[in-house]
Amino acid sequence: MRATLIYGAGDIRSEIVRDPIIQRPTDALVRVVASCICGSDLWPYRGVSPTPKPRRIGHEFVGLVEEVGADVQTLRPGQFVVAPFVISDNTCPNCQRGVQTSCLNGGHWGTKDAEGFWAEGGQGEWVRVPQADGTLVGLNETPDASLVPALLSLSDVMGTGHHAALGAGVGPGSTVAVVGDGAVGLCAVLAARRLGAERVVLMSRTPARQALGTAFGADTIVTERGEEGSARIRDLFEGLGADAVLECVGTDEAMEQAVASARPGGRVGYVGAPISGKSAPIGPLFGRNVGLVGGVAPVRAYIPELLADVLAGKLDPGRVFDSTLPLAEAAAGYRAMDERTAIKVLLAP
Amino acid sequence: MRATLIYGAGDIRSEIVRDPIIQRPTDALVRVVASCICGSDLWPYRGVSPTPKPRRIGHEFVGLVEEVGADVQTLRPGQFVVAPFVISDNTCPNCQRGVQTSCLNGGHWGTKDAEGFWAEGGQGEWVRVPQADGTLVGLNETPDASLVPALLSLSDVMGTGHHAALGAGVGPGSTVAVVGDGAVGLCAVLAARRLGAERVVLMSRTPARQALGTAFGADTIVTERGEEGSARIRDLFEGLGADAVLECVGTDEAMEQAVASARPGGRVGYVGAPISGKSAPIGPLFGRNVGLVGGVAPVRAYIPELLADVLAGKLDPGRVFDSTLPLAEAAAGYRAMDERTAIKVLLAP
Repeated sequence: MRATLIYGAGDIRSEIVRDPIIQRPTDALVRVVASCICGSDLWPYRGVSPTPKPRRIGHEFVGLVEEVGADVQTLRPGQFVVAPFVISDNTCPNCQRGVQTSCLNGGHWGTKDAEGFWAEGGQGEWVRVPQADGTLVGLNETPDASLVPALLSLSDVMGTGHHAALGAGVGPGSTVAVVGDGAVGLCAVLAARRLGAERVVLMSRTPARQALGTAFGADTIVTERGEEGSARIRDLFEGLGADAVLECVGTDEAMEQAVASARPGGRVGYVGAPISGKSAPIGPLFGRNVGLVGGVAPVRAYIPELLADVLAGKLDPGRVFDSTLPLAEAAAGYRAMDERTAIKVLLAP
Repeated sequence: MRATLIYGAGDIRSEIVRDPIIQRPTDALVRVVASCICGSDLWPYRGVSPTPKPRRIGHEFVGLVEEVGADVQTLRPGQFVVAPFVISDNTCPNCQRGVQTSCLNGGHWGTKDAEGFWAEGGQGEWVRVPQADGTLVGLNETPDASLVPALLSLSDVMGTGHHAALGAGVGPGSTVAVVGDGAVGLCAVLAARRLGAERVVLMSRTPARQALGTAFGADTIVTERGEEGSARIRDLFEGLGADAVLECVGTDEAMEQAVASARPGGRVGYVGAPISGKSAPIGPLFGRNVGLVGGVAPVRAYIPELLADVLAGKLDPGRVFDSTLPLAEAAAGYRAMDERTAIKVLLAP
């Protein structure tokens, strides 16, 4: 089958690899209908995080169950499934508390588990899914093809934006500022609106992203950055700042900007993978009682609820995919996202 | 009148200073019934924070109103009042949201305001109280002398422990770990119990503090520190950690210990003044979805509620005062707290 590998910075290759097979009775084999490239995939692509040896990449996909292991109870061949970006059994104490990203028996796509079993990366034609009952969310009916982008966004970006909004305590009447105009930031706008935010400001200086942010419900776009940007946000909200600031980047600069944009007693919900962000500045948090809640989003917990809204036509995050490429051309997709000529690239096998 | 000044590290003096007078129509003049020494007063005492020139010190007191300015509406001479450790008007947008520590017209004891008016430190015989209507909480009746220590604790430590518990989201059934066995940490135990915590673990290696912690409701005492201490806390809670960890110290070490003691998806409520704590480690917060909520406690917001419990005999944080000294002997009180031979010293004029 065809799959995507990263060999090093700037070096993405589409290769023919061995077909995956069921290895454990709790596995499912999934034929990928659509996968995509994540902003976090750009960190190794840009050489910010190292790639010591070639490896499979990708952690977002939807597909059709091809085959299930003997112990799989909830899924059937032919069923359409959404895969969250982390593998989990959905039954351990952490999963039961909705923190499936800390599953005691979980794992990551494209890595080996403790016993040496390999989970494929998501950017391929097929994926062996460990802990299939826990990991995958199956749909009752095969959805219309037009819904695939929206369903694929539930693998990561929509659930991650939702996690940022929950972390920041967004609810009816909240004032919200979103730092980051990538797919997660844009989904965070949608999530904040869905949770009842009264006013949403998006920080963005790219016209296409500003337009999508506005379509997703942002009332105001702020183009300034850094201290100038947070001063502008404070000005927009009584000179004090927003109730909730959603940090969807992961750099120290974005975090500082987010903290400085929150009102005293407000909350920063942060989901930007802290690749260059090593610490949060306690001083400005402490003195102004700004809370910091978030982390790697347990999207598995959110898929059922968000899925219902997508199927009901109430939520359409699929528009974050502004480019579709064949799987074989994944390298061009990475280039487009790296150069910010695409917001998010869907890969169709 | 007599008041306490700090001249530099280790140099506390009790001196005769000018009597305060009403300077603005919103002032009240308060005769101090009891004041006390704060753990945060030890930072300049220990030279951790600088004291460039001699200054008045102290920010916790209760007393009797002696005189009020022409515009004071809610207080009357003779009335017993509790003073929170920050001055606030209690009407600005931040105060209305319960963040009186960020009052737009507020200030700090022992400093000059923007117009050059001087607020006395709390460790004196009299205090000029700016924004008296907003700052002070008056009692309807003069309380029995036996209640003075408990009422004095509402100036800071009890409200601060409560803030830590609220920040960490303590509620009915929560599992809680408290880092710090100073007066704030001990009050945090009491606060967690009051909010319905199911189980409370206190980290302490000092017998007197362990005993008071147990009396305040701690079920288990952990004497280990650092990584060993947090490993012990995790062991006590399914190997995962506590729902809520209350960080009541303010050092980087305490913060790391607190973060490592929280379960995935748990929350650190932090109130330790970050004198040596400059940053929070984002990595362990992000990966485990541990939230960080807290800051300088807006105790003004909590006094009415906690006061009602104290007056009803349902809450007695007064036992954190294990030493009482005459105001003139404040220096001995600082020494005792610095050497940890006293938990908290009450100063009686």
